[in-house]
Amino acid sequence: MSNLTEVQSRLPQTGCAALLMPSSDEYLSEYARPRDRRLPWLTGFTGSIGSVIVGRDKAAIFVDGRYTEQAARQVDTDLVSVCGFGSVAQVAWMRSNLAPGEKLAVDSRLHSEEELSRLLDLLREARIEIELAPRNLVDDIWREGRPEDSRSTVFDYDIRYAGLSRQEKIAGARARLAERGQELLVVGDPEDVAWLLNIRSNDSRDTLAKRNFVDPVSQFRVPVPLSRALVPLEGAARWFVDRSRLEHSLIEVLDGTVEIMDPAAFDAELARLASGRIVAANARRTNHHLAGIIRSAGKLVHDPSVVAARGIKHENEIAAARAGHKADGAAVVRFLAWLLDAVKVGPVTELDAAERVTQLRAQNPLYLGPSMSNLSASGPNAALPHYVPTPATNRLLNDHPVYWLDSGGQYLGCSTDNTVCFAVGMPEPKHVTAHTLAVKGWLALGRARFPEGTQSTQLDSFARQHLWQHGMDFGHGTGHGVGNFLNIHEVPHIRKEIDHPAVAPIRAGMIVSNEPGYYAQGDFGVRIESHILAVPSRFDGFLEFETLSMLPIDPALIDATLLDDAEARWLADYHEALVEGYRDTLDGEAMAWLESIADAFHAIANARPK
Amino acid sequence: MSNLTEVQSRLPQTGCAALLMPSSDEYLSEYARPRDRRLPWLTGFTGSIGSVIVGRDKAAIFVDGRYTEQAARQVDTDLVSVCGFGSVAQVAWMRSNLAPGEKLAVDSRLHSEEELSRLLDLLREARIEIELAPRNLVDDIWREGRPEDSRSTVFDYDIRYAGLSRQEKIAGARARLAERGQELLVVGDPEDVAWLLNIRSNDSRDTLAKRNFVDPVSQFRVPVPLSRALVPLEGAARWFVDRSRLEHSLIEVLDGTVEIMDPAAFDAELARLASGRIVAANARRTNHHLAGIIRSAGKLVHDPSVVAARGIKHENEIAAARAGHKADGAAVVRFLAWLLDAVKVGPVTELDAAERVTQLRAQNPLYLGPSMSNLSASGPNAALPHYVPTPATNRLLNDHPVYWLDSGGQYLGCSTDNTVCFAVGMPEPKHVTAHTLAVKGWLALGRARFPEGTQSTQLDSFARQHLWQHGMDFGHGTGHGVGNFLNIHEVPHIRKEIDHPAVAPIRAGMIVSNEPGYYAQGDFGVRIESHILAVPSRFDGFLEFETLSMLPIDPALIDATLLDDAEARWLADYHEALVEGYRDTLDGEAMAWLESIADAFHAIANARPK
Repeated sequence: MSNLTEVQSRLPQTGCAALLMPSSDEYLSEYARPRDRRLPWLTGFTGSIGSVIVGRDKAAIFVDGRYTEQAARQVDTDLVSVCGFGSVAQVAWMRSNLAPGEKLAVDSRLHSEEELSRLLDLLREARIEIELAPRNLVDDIWREGRPEDSRSTVFDYDIRYAGLSRQEKIAGARARLAERGQELLVVGDPEDVAWLLNIRSNDSRDTLAKRNFVDPVSQFRVPVPLSRALVPLEGAARWFVDRSRLEHSLIEVLDGTVEIMDPAAFDAELARLASGRIVAANARRTNHHLAGIIRSAGKLVHDPSVVAARGIKHENEIAAARAGHKADGAAVVRFLAWLLDAVKVGPVTELDAAERVTQLRAQNPLYLGPSMSNLSASGPNAALPHYVPTPATNRLLNDHPVYWLDSGGQYLGCSTDNTVCFAVGMPEPKHVTAHTLAVKGWLALGRARFPEGTQSTQLDSFARQHLWQHGMDFGHGTGHGVGNFLNIHEVPHIRKEIDHPAVAPIRAGMIVSNEPGYYAQGDFGVRIESHILAVPSRFDGFLEFETLSMLPIDPALIDATLLDDAEARWLADYHEALVEGYRDTLDGEAMAWLESIADAFHAIANARPK
Repeated sequence: MSNLTEVQSRLPQTGCAALLMPSSDEYLSEYARPRDRRLPWLTGFTGSIGSVIVGRDKAAIFVDGRYTEQAARQVDTDLVSVCGFGSVAQVAWMRSNLAPGEKLAVDSRLHSEEELSRLLDLLREARIEIELAPRNLVDDIWREGRPEDSRSTVFDYDIRYAGLSRQEKIAGARARLAERGQELLVVGDPEDVAWLLNIRSNDSRDTLAKRNFVDPVSQFRVPVPLSRALVPLEGAARWFVDRSRLEHSLIEVLDGTVEIMDPAAFDAELARLASGRIVAANARRTNHHLAGIIRSAGKLVHDPSVVAARGIKHENEIAAARAGHKADGAAVVRFLAWLLDAVKVGPVTELDAAERVTQLRAQNPLYLGPSMSNLSASGPNAALPHYVPTPATNRLLNDHPVYWLDSGGQYLGCSTDNTVCFAVGMPEPKHVTAHTLAVKGWLALGRARFPEGTQSTQLDSFARQHLWQHGMDFGHGTGHGVGNFLNIHEVPHIRKEIDHPAVAPIRAGMIVSNEPGYYAQGDFGVRIESHILAVPSRFDGFLEFETLSMLPIDPALIDATLLDDAEARWLADYHEALVEGYRDTLDGEAMAWLESIADAFHAIANARPK
């Protein structure tokens, strides 16, 4: 009996006709830990986001466009139909498959307050009944062989990297509470907790220690413990975390500022502290169960101020980011110099390349493990923006002229995430055109100057404009905020959806990615990605970007006739600065190769009419 | 006794301590008719938008930044303090000036449902009581000398210009109702009514007949009667309008499709038809009093579908727009040719120029009057984006090298609104730089190509990017939708505020203005403005713009070194097309002058290195 059919057989005992199971965990993590991956356990689907509704004799999985094909391959399509993403599709399926009066079981811990409120509205309109409880049938059944939670140690994150002390950050949070007449801050997002309390975990180091370079994906963790915090206006901040994972030195420095409490005590303590109070919580990052406790006890006010505060980097964070990008970029330059040689003399696969770049990063003593999976993509695989190679899909790079690698590392004070795109064979004009247009978008965003506070969505079109002129586009956001030795995805996002919750005004000190691309389905793909830092320009009130990533562009994939003079000059200057920047770090073949790239861009710039 | 003090003396009889009076009328018109201009009657302030709160012995006027100076000049500042715009500022003033338990009188007809709901929330939080009723003290007092309402005739708007018949438009509205399970459409915006029922009024012709060319401002009307309509799912559409203004032929063609009803019967008929029904109404264009009637009788659903439908022009509307822009542009070209000669031989004032352009427009038999006031601006006046000259502010154009004129006309099938900016003396480098950067933004938006459905706010930054590079910007939107012989301001707006209600996806068939500028306070200003039509590009799913306005740019205000090759070439081709386009319309001095402009742009393009 499969896990799915076992759940179906036990459904009648629950009194419900169907069960909704999302990919997220009760912390609403972007990457759920293995023990919380209920969706793959139920269906076999391993994509990063989706949900399933299990009925007594049928089921449906709800995934977005990029996962339709993968879901159809991974699930048992005799039992499970593949449907579009989102609550509207879910309700449509339930309208057709539930009889009037039948109930849907929903685990109130696995959905954000914001998301579940929307679903509840739709269900009410559709007259579908719901049984909402902080539990689910999968947890009743899935016991044997269920992975343990991470046991990596949790440590004090040095102020050299964090910038502000936890006392200063907590005082800031309290000042914001007081300013708005609020009395309690609920920090429901483990990444917000890690930033606020200056703590990190050894998860990425543990991944590194396993030396599993081929598949860093399944090992990858955001280096924070799953935990929550409560910050009342007065008295100690409470941190709900497994005390046995904390380094002794961390426990010592927390004393007097932060009270460590048992995670099992969270609900009761929240109810107690929220009672009769105005409570600030990020409704997008607080699960519906906890929001219900707040609403029963006091008044809930949506407040994303912690995630907003951590988006603006301190000068220490910025200094560490510059150092981290140099350390990381050196490994990527070495990788590229190796790769372009290796493909000339023998076969190299996507997985070979992914392994090699991780090995090179691991040679750096500052490297603390991967910040993401290695997206190593060639040929038609490279047309899937989120492609991660597996033994089943692994391609020979030698078979296609264009290759891109989207990968990153964790360093103290810096999470990197970058994409390099190089010709490993003789590119065709269509490859060169698409890449040049994407690079022009990358230049337009990277070279933009704009008033502080410009909405991130307004910068999105800068990166797309040159592709648009040729009737081309890319189906993902242009960029996203980046954490400091944290999750590489943060607020703000640079994207076209103006009502997306991660769209926000750009402020000095924000670090975002700049990653336009182009994807020709079934054929090829290109992408370049850097991290850029918003800094004051010489004009009062106007910002510009400093490119933090130190990565070369492939001149063989540039059509110089599509560049204007300023773009050609900028690329030449940029590559010259890379050579200078790496002079104390790189030598031998890697340096010679990088110099040859810089020379090629100088030749492009100098060949233009004066 | 001033009007203000008379209102203050009678306040105690109302049982309220203060009275709120906005600039808008009960139709929420952008331009209230003289009899509805309660704010100027009360305070002397003549700006287009603002509000006053009158207390027993003091008062405050609430205006946005562009009107602060004007308000301070126009109101009696011993009695009235000048405050910032909006409900937050209003509530702050009330907190300081009303005692607990004192009441504010608000006329529920003069605020949109959306706006007043927000104010009511704020007042509730501030514990300020309110007396809400569909009446106000100003109307009780202001009887003598109050202007009559417009008596201009209302006529059938020919399908040659309207495109779709009123039967087709009503059927479309009913189909949208049925699709959404709604049962009644309330059309509360007189412009929506005019579009839906294919009717217009002679207001702009009446303005023209008065031949008051110096001050078309105070005469200007959107050429529609103030009226409302109700469209139930079944039975006749009801139109609430003064029957005596309707041409007999209009009454005849309406028979069987539209029932004409007395405006005084509207509230009762609305209550009757809304009873127990789901009612669609645009909450931004329906006043709070009417929304209250709907909510008491049935269920109100916000629905902006009529204004959305009229934003997408029919092929007949587009054909008429092309013709209208040519007719209008020819008058403006003649004006410019005259002006540049006239300033060489003698004094010309802002008002002289404003009068001249209206006279030239009026020579065209297709012209039906002004679509807006003539913004004719020189020197420091030109630094005020919404400046309209008056005898008190009138400047000699000969005193400053840069002049711009923002003006427009009404034509059957076309409302124009354009800005030309020319050097009437020797411009300084700062004038040329600012103008060239604004023109580069105008080119970037006008030459953009983008996926259909791109949000208007995402195109806004295209027009600003070159100014931004120099630390410059402009404080108004980049563009706005344009009506068809209607109001020149419509949804969508191209602007930076992503949560503005007029931000919308751009669709093929939309006409918007493209009007970047730059304003150096107390010194000078530049602006260029065209109307552009979104049309399918040669790439499937991508739109581009066709520039409808046929107006020259001043080559004397262009720094060719700031242009790229493509921009220089586009400007040369554009001006060559103007010359060709006007060959059957213009001759003599105007044509010779236009040819000299085109020659100058050819010289700029041809001087570039190959």
